Amino acid sequence: MGGLGDRGEGSPAVIPFSDGCGVVAAIGAGVSNVAVGDRVSTVHSPDWVSGPPTPEKGAVELGGPEAPGAGRELALLPEGAVIRAPEYLSDDEVATLACASLTAWRALFYDAHLRPGDTVVLQGTGGVSIFGLQFAVAAGLRTIVTSSSDDKLERARALGADVLINYVQTPKWGRAVREATGGRGADFILEVGGAGTLDQSFKAIRMGGHIAIVGAVATLAEPAQIAPHTFLRTAARVQGLVVGSREMFEQQLRAMTQSQIHPVVDRVFSWHDLRGALDFFDSGSHFGKVVIRFD
Amino acid sequence: MGGLGDRGEGSPAVIPFSDGCGVVAAIGAGVSNVAVGDRVSTVHSPDWVSGPPTPEKGAVELGGPEAPGAGRELALLPEGAVIRAPEYLSDDEVATLACASLTAWRALFYDAHLRPGDTVVLQGTGGVSIFGLQFAVAAGLRTIVTSSSDDKLERARALGADVLINYVQTPKWGRAVREATGGRGADFILEVGGAGTLDQSFKAIRMGGHIAIVGAVATLAEPAQIAPHTFLRTAARVQGLVVGSREMFEQQLRAMTQSQIHPVVDRVFSWHDLRGALDFFDSGSHFGKVVIRFD
Amino acid sequence: MGGLGDRGEGSPAVIPFSDGCGVVAAIGAGVSNVAVGDRVSTVHSPDWVSGPPTPEKGAVELGGPEAPGAGRELALLPEGAVIRAPEYLSDDEVATLACASLTAWRALFYDAHLRPGDTVVLQGTGGVSIFGLQFAVAAGLRTIVTSSSDDKLERARALGADVLINYVQTPKWGRAVREATGGRGADFILEVGGAGTLDQSFKAIRMGGHIAIVGAVATLAEPAQIAPHTFLRTAARVQGLVVGSREMFEQQLRAMTQSQIHPVVDRVFSWHDLRGALDFFDSGSHFGKVVIRFD
Amino acid sequence: MGGLGDRGEGSPAVIPFSDGCGVVAAIGAGVSNVAVGDRVSTVHSPDWVSGPPTPEKGAVELGGPEAPGAGRELALLPEGAVIRAPEYLSDDEVATLACASLTAWRALFYDAHLRPGDTVVLQGTGGVSIFGLQFAVAAGLRTIVTSSSDDKLERARALGADVLINYVQTPKWGRAVREATGGRGADFILEVGGAGTLDQSFKAIRMGGHIAIVGAVATLAEPAQIAPHTFLRTAARVQGLVVGSREMFEQQLRAMTQSQIHPVVDRVFSWHDLRGALDFFDSGSHFGKVVIRFD
Repeated sequence: MGGLGDRGEGSPAVIPFSDGCGVVAAIGAGVSNVAVGDRVSTVHSPDWVSGPPTPEKGAVELGGPEAPGAGRELALLPEGAVIRAPEYLSDDEVATLACASLTAWRALFYDAHLRPGDTVVLQGTGGVSIFGLQFAVAAGLRTIVTSSSDDKLERARALGADVLINYVQTPKWGRAVREATGGRGADFILEVGGAGTLDQSFKAIRMGGHIAIVGAVATLAEPAQIAPHTFLRTAARVQGLVVGSREMFEQQLRAMTQSQIHPVVDRVFSWHDLRGALDFFDSGSHFGKVVIRFD
Repeated sequence: MGGLGDRGEGSPAVIPFSDGCGVVAAIGAGVSNVAVGDRVSTVHSPDWVSGPPTPEKGAVELGGPEAPGAGRELALLPEGAVIRAPEYLSDDEVATLACASLTAWRALFYDAHLRPGDTVVLQGTGGVSIFGLQFAVAAGLRTIVTSSSDDKLERARALGADVLINYVQTPKWGRAVREATGGRGADFILEVGGAGTLDQSFKAIRMGGHIAIVGAVATLAEPAQIAPHTFLRTAARVQGLVVGSREMFEQQLRAMTQSQIHPVVDRVFSWHDLRGALDFFDSGSHFGKVVIRFD
Repeated sequence: MGGLGDRGEGSPAVIPFSDGCGVVAAIGAGVSNVAVGDRVSTVHSPDWVSGPPTPEKGAVELGGPEAPGAGRELALLPEGAVIRAPEYLSDDEVATLACASLTAWRALFYDAHLRPGDTVVLQGTGGVSIFGLQFAVAAGLRTIVTSSSDDKLERARALGADVLINYVQTPKWGRAVREATGGRGADFILEVGGAGTLDQSFKAIRMGGHIAIVGAVATLAEPAQIAPHTFLRTAARVQGLVVGSREMFEQQLRAMTQSQIHPVVDRVFSWHDLRGALDFFDSGSHFGKVVIRFD
Repeated sequence: MGGLGDRGEGSPAVIPFSDGCGVVAAIGAGVSNVAVGDRVSTVHSPDWVSGPPTPEKGAVELGGPEAPGAGRELALLPEGAVIRAPEYLSDDEVATLACASLTAWRALFYDAHLRPGDTVVLQGTGGVSIFGLQFAVAAGLRTIVTSSSDDKLERARALGADVLINYVQTPKWGRAVREATGGRGADFILEVGGAGTLDQSFKAIRMGGHIAIVGAVATLAEPAQIAPHTFLRTAARVQGLVVGSREMFEQQLRAMTQSQIHPVVDRVFSWHDLRGALDFFDSGSHFGKVVIRFD
C-alpha cells in the first residue's frame, strides 16, 4: 500500500512512493526497532536519524533512484526505513505519513520557533498544508487557510481553521492576513505555491517571522522576482526544506497520538486503478492525501 | 480587586498583591498603551519589557517594597504596570493573571523548548500548576498531575490531565512518571515543592529534560540534598524563575484568547473578609486561584 | 563628529548620520545611563532596547526623518540614543560604531547560530563586511573575503582573513567557496551585494547554512531572480536585517573590548569637506569606515 | 597509545581509556570514514552520532564495560569509534582528545548559548578545564581561572586566562568573580568541583547564566546542600553532561584546526610505567592531560 505524495522523478525503473504502510513479515539479524507482525510506516530518508540535515543524510530517499519505494506488495527494506505505526490509525492513514506530514511537522516545530497563540498561514489544501493545519490547531496556534475553493475552505474550517481566505476573490491575500492579525502579520507561512505566492507571503509575514518553502511542485522551478530589499524590511527568515529526520518523525507520532490526529484521506484507489489515482492527484482537486491499496 | 498569589514579604506598610483587574479612570500625557475606560490587568514587573531577565528589569515588583500593589480600590500606576485584558475573561479571571500564569507560561514556552507530544509534569494544583496544566493541554502536550487529593486529581482530569498520580499513595512518583512515559521520563517538570520533591523530579525527568523551579513558598528555603552526580546522569537542565516580561505576557494573552482558556477561580472573597481569604490560601486547600473583590 | 554609513533618505531637512561620538555636556533629570563628561557613541535605534525587532522598536532611527542624527556639533538626545564608549577606542573609532558594526554583530551572533570553526563569507570590504571580518576572526571563525581588488584583499588578509577571492577573476566564486570548504559550503554569508550576488551565495552556502542580507545600498532594490526550488535544495535560511538592539550593542562592546578590536577607519574628513567625504564614500573605494570631524 | 582521563570504573577485565591515538591497519567491508594508514583518534561514545543525548546513544562508552578501550597496542573497533585526526597535532596530542576536550566543547558551545565577550569561569586546571580555557580564549570569551596553585594560575595566564583566582587565598571566590565582572556575574561556569564549589558558583553566576556540571570525580557523589530558593534568585540554568556526539567532535576538530589549538600535555609516561602514570594523575598535580605511550 502506498500513499501518493512524492513520486520520485526520473527513470521508469524507479519503484515509486516514499509513503507506505505494511506489516513486518521477517527481520534480519540485529534488527531491534521492529518485530515480526508489527505494522509500520515507511521512513522517507532512512539515513537521516538525528540532528541537522546534511547532503549525506538526505542522499537516499525512499522511492527515489537510490532506494526502491513503497509501491509494491513486498519490500526488502533496511531497518531505518520503517517505524512502528501508532495503533489508533487505520492502514490507509498510516500510508500517508512518511513525506508530507513530516515536512509540515519539521517546518512548524523544528525550523521555526513558534509559541501557542502565534498565527500561521497554510497555503492551499494539499497534503502538506492540511497536515500543517491539523498540527497547528493541536498546538494552540491560530490558523489562516488560503484556497481557490470555498468548499475546501469550509472543510478546512471543520478541521479548526480560524480564518479563511479565497485567493481568487482576494488575490492580495497578504493584506487580508495583515488585517486578520491586527496589522502585525503572520508569524509563520507554509509557502507551497512558489513564484506566484512568495510576493504575497512577504506582505503577510510579520517582522522577524518565518516563511517555510516546501514541496517539489513544478512551479517552484520558475524563478520568483524577489528584491533583496524585501528581506531587509521584514527581517523575515525564509527557509526551504525537504522532509525530516527519524527523531523528528518519532516526535511527530507522539504528538499525533496525544492529540489523536487522523490524517485526511481524500480518496482511496485500488492499485489496479493507479492511473486514475495519479490523474486525480495531478488534477489538484484533492483535499489532503490520496491513497492506493494493494488488494 | 486583587488576586491572591504573591503577597510581597516585608513591612506592613506594603500594599500587597501583584495581580489585579481594574478600569482605567484617567491617563497621563504620553500614555499610549491604554485608554480611559479600558479594562486592564496589572503587570508583575513593570520594568521588564522584553528580552532576558536582568536584576535591573526585575528590581521593581508590584506589591513589593518598591511599588504598591493591586490591593486597593484606586491606584496610580506607571504605564508599564498595566495591560489591556482580553474581553472574553471575567473581572475575577483577569485578577488572577499577573504572577502565577505568567510564571507557568514562561517556564513552559520560553525557558524550556517543548514540542507537541512532549510530556510535562505539574506538581500539585496551586495557581501556577493549574495554569501550567491548562497551557500545556492547549499546546498539545501530554500532562501528568500529582496531588495528595483524589478529588483534586479528578478536577485536573476535567481540565484535560492525561495521567494522575496521588503522591501520598505513590510517594516514589518519579518511577510512576517513568512508567507512564514508556521508561523515557518526562520532558518537563514544573517543580513547586522544593526540597521534598526535587529528588523525585530527578528520577522522573528524561535525559536532557527541563526542570523549572518556581514559586516562593517557604519550603524552598530549606536546603535540598542534591548530589552533583545526579546532574551528570540525567543531563537535565534545572532552572529557577520569577515571573516574566511584558512581551511574554502579551504572547500568553494571545494564546489564552486563541484557546479560550479560562483561569480556574476556586473562591471569591470580599475585601471585607480579607483575613478569611488569606487563611483559605494558606490552608493550601485551594485549586487554582483565590480572588478578592472590592465591592 | 559623525561616521558615514547610513545617511537617512528623504528630505533635505534631515540631520544626517546615525553614527557619532561625543561628550555628554549636560543631562536631564532621571538620566542614569550616562554622566556629564562621559564619552558616548550614538545608538542607531533608541527605542529598541531588548528582545526581537518589532516595527515599533525600529520606528525611530537616528539620522532619519523621526530623529535628527549625529551630523552636528551639539545634540539634544534621549537617554536611549547614547551609550558609554569603551575607553580603549579613539574618538574617530567610536564614531564608526552605531550602524555598520551592530549590523554585522547581530547578523553573526544573534540571527545565525555559529560555532567556532564555522566558515563565514564576507562580501566586499565596506564597513559592515570589515566589522564582520574582525568579529569573526576574534570568535574563532574561518573567514573568506571577496573583493574586486587584490589590494583590498591583502588588507583583509592582514586583518586575519583566511581565504581571499577576487570575484572579477573568479566570477563564479560560489564554487571557489565550496572548494575552500572541502565541498561542504560556507556556514554563513554576509550578503551585501544584492541581486548580483545572491545567486552565487546560494551556490556557496552549506545545507542548512545562513545567508544574512544587510545594507541599504541601491542595488538591493533591483529584483533578484530566485527560484524557490533553490531554497529547497540548500535548506539555507535567508534573513534580512536592519541594525540591532541596545542589549546587542552592549554585548558587542564587551566583545570588542575583550578582543581589543579597533574599527578600521579608512579616511577622516573635516566637516568643511563634507562633500569630499560623501563623494569618497559613494565612489566605493573605501575599505572600512569613513569619518567626519567637527573641528 | 592511550590518554588518561576516563578509566572506566568496574571490573579489572575492562580494557581502560576512552582516549587514544592510532593508525588504521585494516578496514572491513563498507567502512568509508577512514582508510588504511589514516591516523585516528578514538571516539568516546561510538553510537552517539548526532542530535541530543539519549540513554541508547550513550550506552556504549569506550573503555567501559560495553566496549574495550584504547589501552592496548592493537584494537578492533567499529567504524564509529574512530575519527581522522587533524594533521597539525602530534600523536601525544591526539591521544588526549576523546573525552575531556569534547566535554568542555559541548558544555561551552552546545548546552550553553554564549557570545563573544561573555565571561566564563574554569575551575581548576585539569584536562576539561584547560581545554575549556583554550576553547574559550579562541572564541573571544573572557576567562577566569581558579586554582589552589599560583604556579598553575601563571601557566593558565600564559594560555590566555584574563583573571586568576587562588581559591585557597580567596575561598569566597564567587564574590571575586562578581567583582571582576562589574557586579554582573559570570555568564558560564564549568563546575568540576562538586559539592564543595557549587555554592560559590551560584554566587558567581549572573542572572540567567549557565552552570555546566562535568567530570566524574569522586566528590561529585557527595550530596551538595542546595536550597531551591537559590535557583529562583539567579534564574541560572544548571546542567550536567557526559561527553558529546560525533558531530560535536567533528565541529570541535574544525575549531581546533582553525585556531591551531594544541592540547596541553603535562607528562608522557611509557606503558611500562602505567602505575606511575596513574599515581601522577591521582595526585591531582597535573596541569592539562597525562599521556601513556606504547613503545
